Amino acid sequence: MADINSPLEIGVTTGPIRGSKKIYVGERRVAMREIALEPSAGDPPVRVYDTSGPYTDPDAAIDIQAGLPALRRDWQMARGDIEAYDARAVKPEDNGQLGPDRSGGVSPFPNVIKRPYRAKAGKNLSQMHYARKGIITPEMEYVAERENLGRERLAEYARSGESFGAQIPDFVTPEFVRDEVARGRAIIPSNVNHPESEPMAIGRNFLVKINANIGNSAVASDVAAEVDKMVWSIRWGADTVMDLSTGRNIHDTREWIIRNSPVPIGTVPIYQALEKVGGVAEDLTWEVFRDTLIEQAEQGVDYFTIHAGVRLPYVPLAAKRMTGIVSRGGSIMAKWCLAHHKESFLYEHFDDITEIMKAYDVAYSLGDGLRPGSIYDANDEAQFAELYTLGELTKRAWEHDVQVMIEGPGHVPMHKIKENMEKQLEACGEAPFYTLGPLVTDIAPGYDHITSGIGAAQIGWYGTAMLCYVTPKEHLGLPDRDDVKTGVVTYKLAAHAADLAKGHPAAQVRDDALSKARFEFRWRDQFNLSLDPDTAEQYHDQTLPAEGAKTAHFCSMCGPKFCSMKISQEVREFAAKQNAGVETFVAAKDAEKGMEEMSEKFKEEGGQLYVKAQD
Amino acid sequence: MADINSPLEIGVTTGPIRGSKKIYVGERRVAMREIALEPSAGDPPVRVYDTSGPYTDPDAAIDIQAGLPALRRDWQMARGDIEAYDARAVKPEDNGQLGPDRSGGVSPFPNVIKRPYRAKAGKNLSQMHYARKGIITPEMEYVAERENLGRERLAEYARSGESFGAQIPDFVTPEFVRDEVARGRAIIPSNVNHPESEPMAIGRNFLVKINANIGNSAVASDVAAEVDKMVWSIRWGADTVMDLSTGRNIHDTREWIIRNSPVPIGTVPIYQALEKVGGVAEDLTWEVFRDTLIEQAEQGVDYFTIHAGVRLPYVPLAAKRMTGIVSRGGSIMAKWCLAHHKESFLYEHFDDITEIMKAYDVAYSLGDGLRPGSIYDANDEAQFAELYTLGELTKRAWEHDVQVMIEGPGHVPMHKIKENMEKQLEACGEAPFYTLGPLVTDIAPGYDHITSGIGAAQIGWYGTAMLCYVTPKEHLGLPDRDDVKTGVVTYKLAAHAADLAKGHPAAQVRDDALSKARFEFRWRDQFNLSLDPDTAEQYHDQTLPAEGAKTAHFCSMCGPKFCSMKISQEVREFAAKQNAGVETFVAAKDAEKGMEEMSEKFKEEGGQLYVKAQD
Repeated sequence: MADINSPLEIGVTTGPIRGSKKIYVGERRVAMREIALEPSAGDPPVRVYDTSGPYTDPDAAIDIQAGLPALRRDWQMARGDIEAYDARAVKPEDNGQLGPDRSGGVSPFPNVIKRPYRAKAGKNLSQMHYARKGIITPEMEYVAERENLGRERLAEYARSGESFGAQIPDFVTPEFVRDEVARGRAIIPSNVNHPESEPMAIGRNFLVKINANIGNSAVASDVAAEVDKMVWSIRWGADTVMDLSTGRNIHDTREWIIRNSPVPIGTVPIYQALEKVGGVAEDLTWEVFRDTLIEQAEQGVDYFTIHAGVRLPYVPLAAKRMTGIVSRGGSIMAKWCLAHHKESFLYEHFDDITEIMKAYDVAYSLGDGLRPGSIYDANDEAQFAELYTLGELTKRAWEHDVQVMIEGPGHVPMHKIKENMEKQLEACGEAPFYTLGPLVTDIAPGYDHITSGIGAAQIGWYGTAMLCYVTPKEHLGLPDRDDVKTGVVTYKLAAHAADLAKGHPAAQVRDDALSKARFEFRWRDQFNLSLDPDTAEQYHDQTLPAEGAKTAHFCSMCGPKFCSMKISQEVREFAAKQNAGVETFVAAKDAEKGMEEMSEKFKEEGGQLYVKAQD
Repeated sequence: MADINSPLEIGVTTGPIRGSKKIYVGERRVAMREIALEPSAGDPPVRVYDTSGPYTDPDAAIDIQAGLPALRRDWQMARGDIEAYDARAVKPEDNGQLGPDRSGGVSPFPNVIKRPYRAKAGKNLSQMHYARKGIITPEMEYVAERENLGRERLAEYARSGESFGAQIPDFVTPEFVRDEVARGRAIIPSNVNHPESEPMAIGRNFLVKINANIGNSAVASDVAAEVDKMVWSIRWGADTVMDLSTGRNIHDTREWIIRNSPVPIGTVPIYQALEKVGGVAEDLTWEVFRDTLIEQAEQGVDYFTIHAGVRLPYVPLAAKRMTGIVSRGGSIMAKWCLAHHKESFLYEHFDDITEIMKAYDVAYSLGDGLRPGSIYDANDEAQFAELYTLGELTKRAWEHDVQVMIEGPGHVPMHKIKENMEKQLEACGEAPFYTLGPLVTDIAPGYDHITSGIGAAQIGWYGTAMLCYVTPKEHLGLPDRDDVKTGVVTYKLAAHAADLAKGHPAAQVRDDALSKARFEFRWRDQFNLSLDPDTAEQYHDQTLPAEGAKTAHFCSMCGPKFCSMKISQEVREFAAKQNAGVETFVAAKDAEKGMEEMSEKFKEEGGQLYVKAQD
């Protein structure tokens, strides 16, 4: 662990993803990634959604000690509804120290904001509030540009898909974004004190998003590793990151993360509140919780998971379960409710929380404290009782124009997934759904990124707006850097599969570009267009490492003389050369005449199957 | 490569999977695996389906040079309808040598059967033939016992699921198996010359099965590695194995594999036939192909992929595609058809092939030579034209009581998967569907076990009977041992997810046992019940390696003082101790009286949240 007196050394991965370059598009200079193709393709570069922030821009100066530039500050100031004020003083217990000793802790971030912003008295900073007043914010414009990725290239493709009621436009306008936010069907998490974040939308009429969880626990991890994981996760596609730290140094860890994050950061404030009361759930009070919300809102957390749906009457429903309550926040609140035999203070103080949310534009992520932790418990009474309460709370938050999304399960067999989506849409008025997986079976620990990726792709298709990743370490331990990447790529492909199935007009461009490259043996384009070019090339090179194999018209699967893709190309060339339409062939079997002739022609035109390797 | 004059050294993995033991159940001594639980669980061992054969039985003597015992030989002899005869002589070209030189080849299997069996004149060895005559074979009895796994333990569970028309019984009787085979809804691949195989069924009213592909290519691999991969793949759950070798030594490689395989082996005979004609597709003839079928049938191949649906008129349909023809067999036949401008000899000689199939009981796996190779090409005209021809051929095979399954795609976005299943059921009279994935997006090479696992779980749920695995190396290279395991485990979890969603009564037992172990902190039981105990334990130990952590009531994710499972148990104990029903709590918020009292009671009864680590 770092010496408290020496500067914290934090290394993160920078530089472009191979084959890609950073571009900035439009008036709002929206960051995108462009993948150039080999000249032989004859196609323009493929633009893809880019969550990686300045870290992949070779021209950006990255200084972890200083944090990222405040992209949104001017936009905020121009609205004239915020004021700076003296920040709440950091207390030892914010970092889990009940005394002043910080030994074993980490250095505080050197560039802490001493004067955070909040709404002026009577003002509401929520993007939903602006949207409902008919104001199109720069954040909405940024989102519109960002979501349109590649759409202008799509004229030639017919849209196909089953969207289950989602209404994805051919082209996203700022007005469309405003309207979606106004009606609560999308959120743009954007705490006034996190001006470093690049605006993004979570909603079922937009691209499906993914979240990566990081964070210390009392047993493992350190702040440098967590900042590195944050940068690493957004490099591979995490749209938001949740800092789920527990144990010590929660405050300082979060500050390092937020100041260096270009994506919205979410937290579960009850974790920190619990540390402040020495880990004793029944000692939690509204005052401690409220103070924690202010502390985190001042730091710039963009969304809070609030388990206000774990009401006293629902707790005993969980006692009947196979695996009880598996949400940490849910179990803390359940224990508090039982110990005091009182209704949850989160539920009782919900409107007070809402007042804080709107003063900073923190979005609610209404926590599913009673989500099922096993196939056996899926879709039970406890789960849906809570969901309907979350629906009630959604409406209460919306009365104050505060942005809301709803967290969902968990562990659900495939045939019960759709009911989750349908009930959520019904109960929560189309507020964005944000699910953890779900895992479609319990029997594969070590592979739960896959068991949950299956469920995630499906629920994403049905309408879930953001998918919270699960790593291979789920149920077993804390993810390391490799696990984070595996989790992110798995969820990115699940989210993309959902976009394809919903018929998102910007989705299939990338599949088509990659498949075309595959068919044309442009190996480098295949690698570069894939979600993880490094792994794709590494796997290819394990059997055919020679540089010449990157341009060879075969691969190690079938070898040089036996490639179906190669044969297909010959078939196509043959068909083209003789100008034969399908009808010719359909009629052909009845037309004996001329067959031998055509056969000879094919042989003359180069019917050989052997291909010489170009090395 | 091994010296031709020294004995081939082949090492395979033997011994039980950790925490499991081999058992043999019932009169037919059906092999199963039993996972014992810790005494504290108070539950009986969990029985799981076991594909691993004698290799996981510590009492079995494994001799790769001799092959496995002939489990089914007595059953075959007792039927009185087979005769031994002198095998076709092995020719140099069977191993890809056009001269007598075998240098660079591999040793032939030392224990080759010189006198294979076939049906006596006028007889038909197909399990379907017996089934239609009302005969329940020992193979059917074996299958019934095997499929019933754990069902007697299931009385307490309500069946739940959406089966899309599958009719899975509560208990599988031999008569049920017979009936399913008779009507063509299931097959039991069982070549008379592969008596080493343990009978298994492929059909949508049985557990969903998975297949692992192995095999040499001209570029890579060797026979020892392929035998090892076969044993390795069945250890982790492959129900059948396809030997897709191309290049040289195809005959000898296959012999080593079959003689040592307790699961059915499938091949694509056209690959070997092509080698015999020097790799020139247009030089293929019915005679060479027929000779190859006999050769492979004598060796004991249990099912043949036959691309008889690639008809001349369909070939130009593929010319319009993004990725043409991606099936190797399909492209070979397309090239043959074009070169000769004649109808496929496989289609023309289909009934001749059927005669061979019934003489050995080789099952058809009617190949989808025109399956889509990209999202763009999914569900197109070429694909469905071929599918309807496969349906026509199914009926022709059934006229001779020959077993059939149908191969399916490939690359299909989620919203187009169901149509594949529906059209297959309609076109092919419910013959078992056997699909490769499908991959639900093209953009993740390196992760295609996952992109395809998503599609596989779904199409398995909809009714596909067997899922052909895809490894992380798909599209990039040949799978190594680790890739084989990753592919098998991924497909095992996808197949299990499908069984759960279909409401298979034997499926959820294992999920429940694992989840209960998880809730009760029986870490070793969790590992042992998982599909891959070694990986699960290894991941756990990366953060908490101490032996004491295996019995600790926490894990590294939340640490000792913050475990939701622990809190849940406290909630449950509290609810139980005070005998409070749900009603008590539901009424509670209106009942101020007594709250303080109950609160005190909870604290007295041990409301502490800290748990001491037991090390």
